[in-house]
Amino acid sequence: MSNSFGRVLTVTTFGESHGPAIGCVIDGFPPGFEITAEEIRDELMRRATGQSRWTSQRKEAEDVQILSGMFEGKTTGTPIALLIYNTDARSKDYTKIAAQFRPGHADYTYHHKYGIRDYRGGGRSSARETTMRVAAGALARKYLKLHYGVEIVGWLGQLGELVCDESFDAAVINDNPFFCPDEKRVPDLEEYMKALWKSGDSVGALVRARATGVPVGIGAPVYAKLDGDLAAAMMSINATKGVEIGAGFASVAHKGTEHRDEITPEGFLSNHAGGILGGIASGQPVELSVAFKPTSSLRLPGRTVDTEGKPVEIITTGRHDPCVGIRAVPIVEAMLALTLLDHILLHRAQCGDVPAQTPRVTG
Amino acid sequence: MSNSFGRVLTVTTFGESHGPAIGCVIDGFPPGFEITAEEIRDELMRRATGQSRWTSQRKEAEDVQILSGMFEGKTTGTPIALLIYNTDARSKDYTKIAAQFRPGHADYTYHHKYGIRDYRGGGRSSARETTMRVAAGALARKYLKLHYGVEIVGWLGQLGELVCDESFDAAVINDNPFFCPDEKRVPDLEEYMKALWKSGDSVGALVRARATGVPVGIGAPVYAKLDGDLAAAMMSINATKGVEIGAGFASVAHKGTEHRDEITPEGFLSNHAGGILGGIASGQPVELSVAFKPTSSLRLPGRTVDTEGKPVEIITTGRHDPCVGIRAVPIVEAMLALTLLDHILLHRAQCGDVPAQTPRVTG
Amino acid sequence: MSNSFGRVLTVTTFGESHGPAIGCVIDGFPPGFEITAEEIRDELMRRATGQSRWTSQRKEAEDVQILSGMFEGKTTGTPIALLIYNTDARSKDYTKIAAQFRPGHADYTYHHKYGIRDYRGGGRSSARETTMRVAAGALARKYLKLHYGVEIVGWLGQLGELVCDESFDAAVINDNPFFCPDEKRVPDLEEYMKALWKSGDSVGALVRARATGVPVGIGAPVYAKLDGDLAAAMMSINATKGVEIGAGFASVAHKGTEHRDEITPEGFLSNHAGGILGGIASGQPVELSVAFKPTSSLRLPGRTVDTEGKPVEIITTGRHDPCVGIRAVPIVEAMLALTLLDHILLHRAQCGDVPAQTPRVTG
Amino acid sequence: MSNSFGRVLTVTTFGESHGPAIGCVIDGFPPGFEITAEEIRDELMRRATGQSRWTSQRKEAEDVQILSGMFEGKTTGTPIALLIYNTDARSKDYTKIAAQFRPGHADYTYHHKYGIRDYRGGGRSSARETTMRVAAGALARKYLKLHYGVEIVGWLGQLGELVCDESFDAAVINDNPFFCPDEKRVPDLEEYMKALWKSGDSVGALVRARATGVPVGIGAPVYAKLDGDLAAAMMSINATKGVEIGAGFASVAHKGTEHRDEITPEGFLSNHAGGILGGIASGQPVELSVAFKPTSSLRLPGRTVDTEGKPVEIITTGRHDPCVGIRAVPIVEAMLALTLLDHILLHRAQCGDVPAQTPRVTG
Repeated sequence: MSNSFGRVLTVTTFGESHGPAIGCVIDGFPPGFEITAEEIRDELMRRATGQSRWTSQRKEAEDVQILSGMFEGKTTGTPIALLIYNTDARSKDYTKIAAQFRPGHADYTYHHKYGIRDYRGGGRSSARETTMRVAAGALARKYLKLHYGVEIVGWLGQLGELVCDESFDAAVINDNPFFCPDEKRVPDLEEYMKALWKSGDSVGALVRARATGVPVGIGAPVYAKLDGDLAAAMMSINATKGVEIGAGFASVAHKGTEHRDEITPEGFLSNHAGGILGGIASGQPVELSVAFKPTSSLRLPGRTVDTEGKPVEIITTGRHDPCVGIRAVPIVEAMLALTLLDHILLHRAQCGDVPAQTPRVTG
Repeated sequence: MSNSFGRVLTVTTFGESHGPAIGCVIDGFPPGFEITAEEIRDELMRRATGQSRWTSQRKEAEDVQILSGMFEGKTTGTPIALLIYNTDARSKDYTKIAAQFRPGHADYTYHHKYGIRDYRGGGRSSARETTMRVAAGALARKYLKLHYGVEIVGWLGQLGELVCDESFDAAVINDNPFFCPDEKRVPDLEEYMKALWKSGDSVGALVRARATGVPVGIGAPVYAKLDGDLAAAMMSINATKGVEIGAGFASVAHKGTEHRDEITPEGFLSNHAGGILGGIASGQPVELSVAFKPTSSLRLPGRTVDTEGKPVEIITTGRHDPCVGIRAVPIVEAMLALTLLDHILLHRAQCGDVPAQTPRVTG
Repeated sequence: MSNSFGRVLTVTTFGESHGPAIGCVIDGFPPGFEITAEEIRDELMRRATGQSRWTSQRKEAEDVQILSGMFEGKTTGTPIALLIYNTDARSKDYTKIAAQFRPGHADYTYHHKYGIRDYRGGGRSSARETTMRVAAGALARKYLKLHYGVEIVGWLGQLGELVCDESFDAAVINDNPFFCPDEKRVPDLEEYMKALWKSGDSVGALVRARATGVPVGIGAPVYAKLDGDLAAAMMSINATKGVEIGAGFASVAHKGTEHRDEITPEGFLSNHAGGILGGIASGQPVELSVAFKPTSSLRLPGRTVDTEGKPVEIITTGRHDPCVGIRAVPIVEAMLALTLLDHILLHRAQCGDVPAQTPRVTG
Repeated sequence: MSNSFGRVLTVTTFGESHGPAIGCVIDGFPPGFEITAEEIRDELMRRATGQSRWTSQRKEAEDVQILSGMFEGKTTGTPIALLIYNTDARSKDYTKIAAQFRPGHADYTYHHKYGIRDYRGGGRSSARETTMRVAAGALARKYLKLHYGVEIVGWLGQLGELVCDESFDAAVINDNPFFCPDEKRVPDLEEYMKALWKSGDSVGALVRARATGVPVGIGAPVYAKLDGDLAAAMMSINATKGVEIGAGFASVAHKGTEHRDEITPEGFLSNHAGGILGGIASGQPVELSVAFKPTSSLRLPGRTVDTEGKPVEIITTGRHDPCVGIRAVPIVEAMLALTLLDHILLHRAQCGDVPAQTPRVTG
């Protein structure tokens, strides 16, 4: 099931960027849980394009419909289908590149895989698909918070070469259009993006996320490791090129005595593990980083071939984010929430319920 | 199914480090394929401990038995079970730490998850489990090479702070006990490991791998992306803390014009994508990097708690690799091979067979 | 994934009888296949209520929308979402039984499982869900016919105590509202249903189906047997109480010499196996029978309890089929088509493509 | 994963009848549960061949090894591998029919599917595979009884044309080699089998099973129905040709007023549903029937073709049960136990734990 993820809580998404609609089906969600379309919409608006001048100017109403699985405001345990019609698609922007492959874009591989593709706006490979991850994530996030006290926060760690100071107050993050935790960096980011926009180029970004209150014991050996599932979840987001858990690639140069997180009766003394040992949550905060590549759809000309293999120069004129990584913050949070809840439910199956985190284990 | 991986070609592993045996069941492998126990054993010996003074001195005969799924030297299409009895386990090494949690080790989380654990040698969380990945990978690797011309090579990119020159001749890699592609680095590595061994500490490592000849078109949107499945496969290996595809975290500072791999009729002009676009193989070499943390079982004392939460000082005296990353090279190769073959078979289901790679698309 | 079926070709359905809409997501369907909403609608009309006076009088426009996975009239290989809004739902019919359990109905068990249920029209347990099976089946059926020459036909074998003569001409089946293959039985069935309707009672039915041209070799040991998957598929249809393959329960009294289907160079001499041996298709017609129980929603009063456990007399006044088995014929055909195509694709993954059936193996 | 079944509690089996060994891997079993190899062996002996003169005379020591997943007598939550070496295989019995297809046997379809087969003793399609279902079932059965009070009993309902009186005392069933609940029928069965044995022919059988104490609420819509999963589980047993839940095919002639199980505050007044409504357990006993065809390996000559398509007369001289249905009783029980426990665990994931059955709901 290539378009589904999750083990006992599953999300199946469908829809193309410029097709009639996008949607998802959430299966296995606990019954009796209250959530409204407005709450889902709020989460969607954080991700939505058109919110700032730094992201694509496509207006997406994000008018999400709940088609099933709820009754009188509560989940019923049956599959929850969410749907958003595509309203502001400008397909003709893509007509002239219909027979060309954008360098660095999935249209090359979709074409070679299927022998056919919906070239309008990237079709199924568009970041538009991630809307549904955020919608489904809204349910998981609220459930995690209410039932297990789990809190999730994501932020921009780096944009191009601009590194953010991460000794932050979480309140700052949602106060600027970059999800930047570093107030003093915001003017630099604005300047940078302004210049980038002007140049016609795009840039990569680093997104980080942390979940606190994760119950000790969730996760599983060996191919259902919590970090394995998180890695797959993050790598499934468009434009991701790398995933780290805890210390990540810095671990390469670590000594064992430096890396291992010593334990005292009061808790762990460090968190290089990123809250996961042997694929199972330790009760410390789960911490991860995700690398996003720069957008491949550029108005700066590039060399490529057309569908007949002939060399052409390509220029993409559709509306595109100069840095997809910015908008990736709520998507990373959503994938983190969905993966954590899936593993809590999986744990309940084999081992019974997990307690809310004990105060003894603190990070 | 927490102990299985793969979509249509699945591998299920079982067994603890110091239990009676370890084994695996390979399901969905194509019929009529010739392979011998000796060929599997050859692959296992590359990973085996006791091969050099730099890895654990546990002698593992790796006397693999093929219990099913083969007849007169050929696979029959039914499940292939492989088994290795554990012969050189010294369980009493672990008696004194049976009630203690090694900092940075999975025994803490297994204990909290299950309320019970086989503390001898790490039990199920031991790197011993990866033996079976290499065994199963031997079949995938041979099949990929014979039927699709796919070649896989892995190497040590960095050990602690020692970086290897990667402009290499593949022949060098198997000529030294470090899987190092850089002949001139080998004496440094020997010196480094000697000092490390003496100190009682451990160190992390960076492993890289490349697959050439990967058929364009394998992989799938959106949650069965080839890179998503590779990330999960790599993160499921013990001690992994990070995974990169292609340019990986370097993409964060890339501009779009720099990162995108331009295309000419003769092929791509670069490979920042690492051979995967939109989750689907482009026909270029698939390239990835994996970060391994240092071993957590050290004979240098560390602070921890026992199973009753009381503070204790722990020293681990079992036989352990001072750098698990060295032996991870054949494991990374095996997981890469299994994931690629799984995706070839999945592609055959939906789209029919893939052609062997065309010469037009070169990296 | 409780609301999905299939192994490599999967269908996920969602929606309640009186919710906003019902729909499905078809994943893994081969690309480049032409089908129109009209063709799907034609198949739906065969199943639709309101087509005869013998089935529920709910008018269902069955105005199916294709939301994704198609481009310029062809499947693209990405998930195909189908949606039908519920238009003629009369929810207030159910208000008075909202707190009562219909004997023989799933509202009792849904309530006990989830602690909440959408009582309007049976919610998720309504036969309305099967609409989506027929819609998805339309794609599978057309593909099977065009690519593999597989033809599927279902019919009413028995209604209550009225047994149909099954030595039939397939053309008759679609010429009467009962899917009865026995022209002479049709007046009896009309008479029977008229009396039944008057009485307020309901009745069971036997549905049979046959697929010809099934490629020899599809199916798999041991838990993916073609007959095992067919049994699950049929038992998942509302009101099913039994499934037989080939000779079915008659096999109990068979001798081995009588039951075994002898083989000659010209083909098999009988088909007690129903076209499946060891879970794998023999190339003979696949034949099965399905038993449907009578509808449990009756206007004749029955003893039951309410949600507080107090005894009440229940009368159901919504619109209900007096014999759900009649309309089950296209549903059985659809589930047969989907299961066969799933197994053809699964076979392609492991063994490569199957040839269209050879003339040598005839039933 | 063709050789695995279960959703969150999974069993993967491997091994051929005359290969080195058969085994299974049980994944997802709750930790901390005590069971011994002897307890598993006891269950195996009920199924074992060589126990009576009416079943195959192959001696199977059933010396089961527990290779993993247990520590100090308790399950650890990691995969439990069970293994039995094949000791009394007489492969040369099969040499002369190596190139012939037994009518009614899976060797025809395995050959056509895979182009290769292990012809010795039926290979993977042998009933020998079911040994592992009984072994895995032993764990599920004990767990169900201790934790949920679920009791499972199976029996022979009919052998050929001999119908057993089913108003029984469960104690009788294990007191005769036929699992017959009807003491007075035993001499007839002995006489019948003696004559059958002499004749060289085989015969079919009907097996029934009942589970009491099944928690109300387990099961799930729509494609994970408890009865759907039971149908698949039963149909996956060798030689099964039909499955019924509750009233089964008798439902066809039922009126709704007769079939619906009315409810009073003291419980249901009948159990035509067989304990399942809408795919979810009602708390009444789960009841099912399974039809087994006669063995196809006969010493009476039959017409068939060889692997080159030439007509031959076949005689099978290996050791075969004249009625596989007799030994199927413990297999049906095991599959019922595994399916019920799987659904209890699945229910725990989504809805939390199920209470042991309340006394209010009685059958």
